[in-house]
Amino acid sequence: MKKITILINCKDSKGIIAAVTNFIHQQNGNIVYIDQHVDREDNMFFMRLECELLKESFSFRVFKNVFRDVIADKFEMTWRMYDSDQKPKMALFVSKYEHCLYDILSRYTTNELEVEIPLIISNHQDLEPIAKSFNIPYYYIKVTKETKQQAEDEQLKLLREFEIDFIVLARYMQIISSKLIEEYPNKIINIHHSFLPAFPGAKPYHSAFKRGVKIIGATSHYVTEELDEGPIIEQDITRISHINTIKDFILKGRDLEKIVLSRALKLHTKRKVMVFKNKTVVFK
Amino acid sequence: MKKITILINCKDSKGIIAAVTNFIHQQNGNIVYIDQHVDREDNMFFMRLECELLKESFSFRVFKNVFRDVIADKFEMTWRMYDSDQKPKMALFVSKYEHCLYDILSRYTTNELEVEIPLIISNHQDLEPIAKSFNIPYYYIKVTKETKQQAEDEQLKLLREFEIDFIVLARYMQIISSKLIEEYPNKIINIHHSFLPAFPGAKPYHSAFKRGVKIIGATSHYVTEELDEGPIIEQDITRISHINTIKDFILKGRDLEKIVLSRALKLHTKRKVMVFKNKTVVFK
Amino acid sequence: MKKITILINCKDSKGIIAAVTNFIHQQNGNIVYIDQHVDREDNMFFMRLECELLKESFSFRVFKNVFRDVIADKFEMTWRMYDSDQKPKMALFVSKYEHCLYDILSRYTTNELEVEIPLIISNHQDLEPIAKSFNIPYYYIKVTKETKQQAEDEQLKLLREFEIDFIVLARYMQIISSKLIEEYPNKIINIHHSFLPAFPGAKPYHSAFKRGVKIIGATSHYVTEELDEGPIIEQDITRISHINTIKDFILKGRDLEKIVLSRALKLHTKRKVMVFKNKTVVFK
Amino acid sequence: MKKITILINCKDSKGIIAAVTNFIHQQNGNIVYIDQHVDREDNMFFMRLECELLKESFSFRVFKNVFRDVIADKFEMTWRMYDSDQKPKMALFVSKYEHCLYDILSRYTTNELEVEIPLIISNHQDLEPIAKSFNIPYYYIKVTKETKQQAEDEQLKLLREFEIDFIVLARYMQIISSKLIEEYPNKIINIHHSFLPAFPGAKPYHSAFKRGVKIIGATSHYVTEELDEGPIIEQDITRISHINTIKDFILKGRDLEKIVLSRALKLHTKRKVMVFKNKTVVFK
Repeated sequence: MKKITILINCKDSKGIIAAVTNFIHQQNGNIVYIDQHVDREDNMFFMRLECELLKESFSFRVFKNVFRDVIADKFEMTWRMYDSDQKPKMALFVSKYEHCLYDILSRYTTNELEVEIPLIISNHQDLEPIAKSFNIPYYYIKVTKETKQQAEDEQLKLLREFEIDFIVLARYMQIISSKLIEEYPNKIINIHHSFLPAFPGAKPYHSAFKRGVKIIGATSHYVTEELDEGPIIEQDITRISHINTIKDFILKGRDLEKIVLSRALKLHTKRKVMVFKNKTVVFK
Repeated sequence: MKKITILINCKDSKGIIAAVTNFIHQQNGNIVYIDQHVDREDNMFFMRLECELLKESFSFRVFKNVFRDVIADKFEMTWRMYDSDQKPKMALFVSKYEHCLYDILSRYTTNELEVEIPLIISNHQDLEPIAKSFNIPYYYIKVTKETKQQAEDEQLKLLREFEIDFIVLARYMQIISSKLIEEYPNKIINIHHSFLPAFPGAKPYHSAFKRGVKIIGATSHYVTEELDEGPIIEQDITRISHINTIKDFILKGRDLEKIVLSRALKLHTKRKVMVFKNKTVVFK
Repeated sequence: MKKITILINCKDSKGIIAAVTNFIHQQNGNIVYIDQHVDREDNMFFMRLECELLKESFSFRVFKNVFRDVIADKFEMTWRMYDSDQKPKMALFVSKYEHCLYDILSRYTTNELEVEIPLIISNHQDLEPIAKSFNIPYYYIKVTKETKQQAEDEQLKLLREFEIDFIVLARYMQIISSKLIEEYPNKIINIHHSFLPAFPGAKPYHSAFKRGVKIIGATSHYVTEELDEGPIIEQDITRISHINTIKDFILKGRDLEKIVLSRALKLHTKRKVMVFKNKTVVFK
Repeated sequence: MKKITILINCKDSKGIIAAVTNFIHQQNGNIVYIDQHVDREDNMFFMRLECELLKESFSFRVFKNVFRDVIADKFEMTWRMYDSDQKPKMALFVSKYEHCLYDILSRYTTNELEVEIPLIISNHQDLEPIAKSFNIPYYYIKVTKETKQQAEDEQLKLLREFEIDFIVLARYMQIISSKLIEEYPNKIINIHHSFLPAFPGAKPYHSAFKRGVKIIGATSHYVTEELDEGPIIEQDITRISHINTIKDFILKGRDLEKIVLSRALKLHTKRKVMVFKNKTVVFK
């Protein structure tokens, strides 16, 4: 059997679910999962659907075309369709912090992630040995004020060459440019080490310490033009108290960053996240 | 518009979702919510669906009959259908602990619960003043070894008289008899003050203290013949440490009990819980 | 035995703990609990100590004087000493929301709080019946732009008359004036329905919904001149998702507000909170 | 300055804290941290204390002797004293699961753990490449029914040779023998993949799935003769629901196992854990 994942959003109206499920049924498909959401404020309909079709007679191209003609156009849908067997290709951007890199690569090595990682890009050479020990190509592209433009072009060239589908910033300490964001809209995942919207920008653990909060957090979100303001995919928190120093915040925070980033990238990889009006719909 | 909630489970097979959604569509209904689950181990299909139908032309009885004839019988479904406007009637059973009673009644008073509470039944007189302050009839039915049989008959008589749909044991300190359980299958909600299956039976906080656990819990479940072994609806936990005494366990536990029981009863009230093989499917 | 609680802070230096514990020992006291914290950034020492002394020979006044002369003055301590038997007197300020009021009063009634509540003050009459059902005097003091000054004077008069030690704002929907804050420094406890410093000010649930966060929170803090910027005593959070409406946020938030406020007021009541530089030290 | 950590427990009596703190003071030491606990049930006193002493004049041996003579013997203390600069030596036991191994070694590499890891011992060869990539000697000691006795002797020989202080079982799939347990009392840390005492023994995720719990957990504890019944150091949990398969339980569980085990081993390493009557006192 061929497994297909379909993500849909459009203006809400009567009969969408019936139309879609009927269509799958008529194509001799079997729906194995359906989840749907209606945003009542904006009157928007969202759906995620997994279905199985007989492999022999199935053509992904034809199926897509028929779906467009019969269903999508009628309801003026924004939609994506994926071959569930096809793993997305992910680029890792890192700088000097190794904890998220280790975490992602050890998950990758143990087949926990349904993804391919063809390359790691970094503005520093420090983490190259780690990449090497996991056998992932590591591209060192220096970024300075003067070379930023050129560095980006090099990055983009690599991303295209390796046909990268999405990017994970594993504590990459550089602002991502508009060009890259435009090329990868809602496809660049960042981990910010605070409970956004609290403490955006630099040194959130220091700010949290200063404010005397009793809980710290981490937030994974898609990168947009506005720094730390993109659609939130996942967040989590941990308790701290007056006995904890900033160093403790950083250590406890690391575990949060690892967990939250890995959850977000898994959700993205399984095509469970839809973005609308700078918010995410995250299907189960 | 008339709002209807349908709960379905049956052997999984192709086309169920299409058949159901199509049916609603043909009845000029609009699906406002659909959630579905397939238990791959047992090959069972579960669905919860909310739909809106034009009030004028709608007859609940007719709609049910047509659904049975056209859909339910075909797929050999176990199914329930509710008029969403109709609030279920709930009986509260209490003994001497007041924290869950206060919690439920204050939620009830502030219209947080979509339920009617026509009566409270107790084997003690202690909590009658609380019931009175919230204007809920309170029936004191003494239970002793000798009168247990008779007490139960009195309880059942009241439950029938008030057309009670389901029962909440808000720290009711008596074993529920088979007769009552049979009359209310998966309709008696209990709160047990441990993280089941750890520490079933009496004095779970004392056992937790003795074992030296670092986390305690509470579990809300449907009552079955096996004590504390019924289908779990909701659980939650809280951290404790060596500094906490049994008295602390009890105090911290109270807050857990209140929260977990209220969540479970809300889920039940909104018809979001299905039971299969002593486990629950809890729709969002 | 007489039980005494001592809270101390001063510049850190050698021998403070030895001096204090030695002092208690020499007074024939037994230390039943000691907790201490050193803020390395500011080089400040904090200690909380509970000790038991023989009741017959004990004079609180004399003990305080000796402690001051022998210990406190030497180390230039800021310190407080409490008779642990003496329950603090708390005033409740409410407006129209009843959930925190119900929660606190039901805890009060079941002797969960080591506190006296001589009165409730409100700018609305709505909650008077609840106060009545718990037998707590309820003072309705209308607050308008024109009468704000006068209303406050009335409030202060009542607080003095009843010898109120601290104030709990149980969703009181008025800004507290400087005069009241000065009279009760770090003695007015507020509950804010967001995870501060995120979403300060009005309508935090609406802001959280708009931003698309995956977790919402509540924060209990001491009231200072800066709105929602006082020292944080306690925070907690709950998960939400795209399916939750603002109404859900509010309902889920209520449970957070109740729990967080009750924890904060218990910590305050047990004299476990010290404030320094707009942050709290919260002893276990 | 020399930093010393002292752990004490003894029958509770008047004046212990004063005696100890006074002693440190007289030795020209400065107490930088003190935490204490009294178990009222058993009337036992526990204390953890960190102090700084002038390096030049300090002899660890002499200090220990004086402490014994002046303090410990008087109060009949069970006590331990550590040079805080001296990192404990830890042996890692693994089998085939790599997630905990990766987690610990990446923390080790990034200097998050105050420990030395001179060797890894395994009953399988599978994880040797990982050990190699982190440059840790890996000893493969096959364990079969017939060779169990001999394998253990080999293990013990290595542990002695490397002067191992404590052992971490990072999902080591063999029962530890009495001999090893006696040699390392409360010094062998295990991670069990359930919320103990629920689901002890084999295949806890399968049992949890079958029972239909809404929360799963992991427990780190010291190994004793009774399987999964040793003193609990740390536990944590994560939410699951009906949509999760056993495979999901295992994946979600992995993250729990990593976090809980790493927390437990950090607590042990920092000498924050005391054991009494099969329970732990875990200082902050």
